[in-house]
Amino acid sequence: MGKGDKEMPAKGYISNSVIRRLPRYYRFLGELQKEGTLKISSAELSARMKLTASQIRQDLNCYGGFGQQGYGYNVDVLRREIGEIIGVKKKIKTILIGAGNLGKAITSYFDFPKYGCELIGIFDVDPQLEGAEIASLSVCSMTKLTAFCGEKKPEIAVLCIPKDSAPAVCEILVESGVKAFLNFSHYDINLHFEGIITENVHMGDSLLTLAYNVNNKDK
Amino acid sequence: MGKGDKEMPAKGYISNSVIRRLPRYYRFLGELQKEGTLKISSAELSARMKLTASQIRQDLNCYGGFGQQGYGYNVDVLRREIGEIIGVKKKIKTILIGAGNLGKAITSYFDFPKYGCELIGIFDVDPQLEGAEIASLSVCSMTKLTAFCGEKKPEIAVLCIPKDSAPAVCEILVESGVKAFLNFSHYDINLHFEGIITENVHMGDSLLTLAYNVNNKDK
Repeated sequence: MGKGDKEMPAKGYISNSVIRRLPRYYRFLGELQKEGTLKISSAELSARMKLTASQIRQDLNCYGGFGQQGYGYNVDVLRREIGEIIGVKKKIKTILIGAGNLGKAITSYFDFPKYGCELIGIFDVDPQLEGAEIASLSVCSMTKLTAFCGEKKPEIAVLCIPKDSAPAVCEILVESGVKAFLNFSHYDINLHFEGIITENVHMGDSLLTLAYNVNNKDK
Repeated sequence: MGKGDKEMPAKGYISNSVIRRLPRYYRFLGELQKEGTLKISSAELSARMKLTASQIRQDLNCYGGFGQQGYGYNVDVLRREIGEIIGVKKKIKTILIGAGNLGKAITSYFDFPKYGCELIGIFDVDPQLEGAEIASLSVCSMTKLTAFCGEKKPEIAVLCIPKDSAPAVCEILVESGVKAFLNFSHYDINLHFEGIITENVHMGDSLLTLAYNVNNKDK
């Protein structure tokens, strides 16, 4: 486990913006792999990622740096190293709450193992959905959530439920040891629970930003 | 149309990060409205949005400022003003391409008018989906896309198609006058089309960021 054989530098504080760029690097390098690119200069990588070459060097230096001056980056090696830093192979146990339209789409859309997670359970309050098969998992009743978490110890929960149902569900999950949320519910988890890792997805914000930009394009 | 009766200041360049915060203000103020809050100080708003009070003042000053010293913001008024800046009432004509799991979920999940858009068409390559009803719209064949755009002139397209199909579809759409994309396809539109407004949604990046944070929590 850990970071492979690579010696990590004494690690100080790594800023959130650096951490947020790691998945982007990982994704871009995956695209380069698919295109058959073996090596890339930091100038090319920076043009493609719309970051400065010095920003990229700084980011990667937080983790020990992987480039060779005058040579560029080996795409396979760099992607593997970043994958190890993220922990893509660890397959964190993940459950999904809310098997409505969004929950179903997320379940089918995400190839969870590709993102370092393993989906091990889907839960919904609707008794009519109990037993329905989604992505080869059976939807479970919410009444089984506590027992399930106690036994299987999932660490991540994907919340595809309305905001109003979120507080009670989060309380059960946090008490059961869930450490992190991919949160589509618009409920502000961090305002109510301390030390919980949260990624809030606000797709509506993206649509509003588009609307603003279209409406203000020619001004 | 424009910004209502409010006199706007001579408007200089407004940075992308300010623009990106407008939807957040709009969303937070909507939550305050629902809670029945009529007034909020910039200190309270800043605690809630995790921005400094001075950042909020600076942001709003880009649009003329809306606060009153020692009084705070009137929630209804501020939300209405920000809604007008975004152009929430304009209902930009929007189409969605790709009626698979994700496309269906987006169609049902988004209350488009709430985000300044009106969904007027759904398209898919799969002939089996033609005529299927989603959110009271019939799925159309992709063969009708060009004619539809010529007649109805949609300005925004939501792309829920695989990366490989995106280049050809984007070419049709851009040629037909579509100006902006909500892009779930992972195809880098801006690399290939100039002057097109794009919001890229990479939900996988959020999951990878979570995985990183869970895996590196106790280090």
